[in-house]
Amino acid sequence: MASRRPISVGLMGLGVVGGGVARALADKASAIEAFVGAPVRLTAALVAHPRRRRSDVPEGVRITGDPGHILDDPQVDIVVEVIGGEEPAFGHIQRALHNGKHVVTANKEVMAKHGPEVLAHAAEHGVSVGFEGSVGGGIPIIGPLLRELAANEISAVNAIINGTTNYMLTRMASDGIEYADALAEAQRLGYTEADPASDVDGVDAAYKLAILSSLAFHTTVRDTDVYREGIGSLAPADFAYAAELGYAVKLVAIAKRVGDEIQVRVHPAFLPAAHPLAKVDGVYNAVELEGDLVDWAMLQGPGAGARPTASAVVGDIMSIAQAVAAGAPPKPPPALDRGLRVQPMADLETKYYLRLRAVDRPGVMAQITRVLGDLHVSLASVIQKEVVDAAGTAEIVITTHTARESAVQDAVRELAALDVVIEVSNLVRVEDGRS
Amino acid sequence: MASRRPISVGLMGLGVVGGGVARALADKASAIEAFVGAPVRLTAALVAHPRRRRSDVPEGVRITGDPGHILDDPQVDIVVEVIGGEEPAFGHIQRALHNGKHVVTANKEVMAKHGPEVLAHAAEHGVSVGFEGSVGGGIPIIGPLLRELAANEISAVNAIINGTTNYMLTRMASDGIEYADALAEAQRLGYTEADPASDVDGVDAAYKLAILSSLAFHTTVRDTDVYREGIGSLAPADFAYAAELGYAVKLVAIAKRVGDEIQVRVHPAFLPAAHPLAKVDGVYNAVELEGDLVDWAMLQGPGAGARPTASAVVGDIMSIAQAVAAGAPPKPPPALDRGLRVQPMADLETKYYLRLRAVDRPGVMAQITRVLGDLHVSLASVIQKEVVDAAGTAEIVITTHTARESAVQDAVRELAALDVVIEVSNLVRVEDGRS
Repeated sequence: MASRRPISVGLMGLGVVGGGVARALADKASAIEAFVGAPVRLTAALVAHPRRRRSDVPEGVRITGDPGHILDDPQVDIVVEVIGGEEPAFGHIQRALHNGKHVVTANKEVMAKHGPEVLAHAAEHGVSVGFEGSVGGGIPIIGPLLRELAANEISAVNAIINGTTNYMLTRMASDGIEYADALAEAQRLGYTEADPASDVDGVDAAYKLAILSSLAFHTTVRDTDVYREGIGSLAPADFAYAAELGYAVKLVAIAKRVGDEIQVRVHPAFLPAAHPLAKVDGVYNAVELEGDLVDWAMLQGPGAGARPTASAVVGDIMSIAQAVAAGAPPKPPPALDRGLRVQPMADLETKYYLRLRAVDRPGVMAQITRVLGDLHVSLASVIQKEVVDAAGTAEIVITTHTARESAVQDAVRELAALDVVIEVSNLVRVEDGRS
Repeated sequence: MASRRPISVGLMGLGVVGGGVARALADKASAIEAFVGAPVRLTAALVAHPRRRRSDVPEGVRITGDPGHILDDPQVDIVVEVIGGEEPAFGHIQRALHNGKHVVTANKEVMAKHGPEVLAHAAEHGVSVGFEGSVGGGIPIIGPLLRELAANEISAVNAIINGTTNYMLTRMASDGIEYADALAEAQRLGYTEADPASDVDGVDAAYKLAILSSLAFHTTVRDTDVYREGIGSLAPADFAYAAELGYAVKLVAIAKRVGDEIQVRVHPAFLPAAHPLAKVDGVYNAVELEGDLVDWAMLQGPGAGARPTASAVVGDIMSIAQAVAAGAPPKPPPALDRGLRVQPMADLETKYYLRLRAVDRPGVMAQITRVLGDLHVSLASVIQKEVVDAAGTAEIVITTHTARESAVQDAVRELAALDVVIEVSNLVRVEDGRS
């Protein structure tokens, strides 16, 4: 049923990513046609201000402020959603699918919150959804999980999937600057939204981890299932101690299978300097996978930006357009039927780094270690630097052997309640891959 | 046209990889069925000694020594070729395609020598060829080039794609051992064939680079188009100087677009210690890609072995079986119609490291540098260590700025002919990504 009929693309959103997609479709029209076997044409674009003159869209593209002009246009084959955010994007996607249109989206929030419904809705209407651009910008990761690595039972996905925080942490590690200064710099460079909370609080990474872990474990994982801790508590002292102990500090997104449960968590972590993710610096992203056949694989690249995201989005458009041109049925949606439970965070077993300030007098260390010992939290190392201020307080840094999260949290509470402890300054998980 | 009819796989070859594929198909039958939408059954296996008892193949699989029992069996849907080598594998593949069977192969030699014919033959008969396992073991790389990264104009592919030599070079770098000892160790560990020439002479890497560059540049690149130099000339001294100068020594496979030409070359190279490939050690492989949209991406993992290769092969089987079950037409073959010419090696412009032994007397350095200067080869650094032996010879190490390969080769000939030069010990290209 192959045909050379042009395939029509309607673009919802002409911001940074949308502009990149429009440019790529125009600039690469002949290469795309050669790949697809039919011309692919951008025919309409939804914008917030349709009357504004635009130089970034080719002649003949209908610029509209009315979503219905794309979603209900029977000529449109593929709807590309690059508005971002939950609504109205989710509504647009569902309406497009209902109208029998294929959808390509880079929307991590919609896929993290409603991915299973979107995929089921697409299957019901016999159309495809491409969402390669929703995780890791231009890094091929969704496709490999669904195809090249599909034979594997995945046991772990460890990732750095937020470029903004990775840039900030890289700066804090290499130049010893404060969190607030790193954030201001990231904002100045345009790496964050006006409200940076989604990046620094780990919300963005949690969306992406929900998507990756759903596919890796064939189980519906929502963003709300992901334990989430941001980078705001990290101070220059933590980076200094990490370096002293041989670790890098990263915001990690970890999905790990433990028996019939899965861990899904986003938080700062100390990684051994030799860990593959420890060397991923700046705005780059990386996803490390462990599978029973492949053993280990890591995929790296730019995690965001107009062109890298357009790389993924246009790749999805090309694959879907090729199938449309060939008259191929859509692929079955990924099975999300394993029903693995999310492990409660209290049951996590890992290692920990604890920094606290205490009164500097005899017997204090004994009190602190007794609290930990009573809770079966075993010490791996203790650093006590000389008195750090006029008040005569000492900074104490403890790393633990593998311990239970609930016990460590209890210990933190008990330590904070000790008269001799002035403050528990930070608690960071240590992920060294050994138990 | 979806059906639940079982999909029949015929396996040609039950060696290390074939055994891994058979085991994975058996162990993962239910997960594969859930993915494909129909059962996938190994029904026959071609072996060299069909009378030998085998414990690694499930009941009900026909073990045969006659290729026709698979290639001409109308029940077989997918032929999996994991025999390796050019013939009889190539003949089997073509016969399978001619008989309307889909083919999955991990055969780099066949795909490097005859890939375009195989892909065209498959298209002619309306079937698919999967060859993810032919490059980089379990690393997803063929699929991403054909799908997720398809929107990119690829400008460079830089890879470490031979695990045996990477293991040897890692050992030579970290422990200062001789080439012969590293080779003996790799052989003892089972990392090489009985005849290690395919690994150490760069033949294996050249096959894989021909495949990658064909897909990256949409141009037919044969193994014979790839410039090839092995690792046999590398001595402990080269590793010591490399470390002193801040470089790692790797066998690189480089495919680079330069205007309307492409460079395709496999040879040892000095890479800056901070280069992403410099940190890829041991038997691991990595492929670094540069594209106009994605900018940069790197894919890493185990480059060989039964299970990693089975990961790729079974992934291909699953994708093809899924399409068969859904009644989908095969994808169009990758277009190889750009017709980019391979740049003659003499035209290469890069940097060089030159190690030579000369008589240690006044004026020698002037003679050597005059040869280079006359050929417009500009020096970046010169190291002369004290006299190294009783004969009073000195070891001189020169690195150059970007120079033309033909000029450097002329210089090496002229230097070797100088009375004062005892030997040109080694010439290694320096790939620092800057010009």
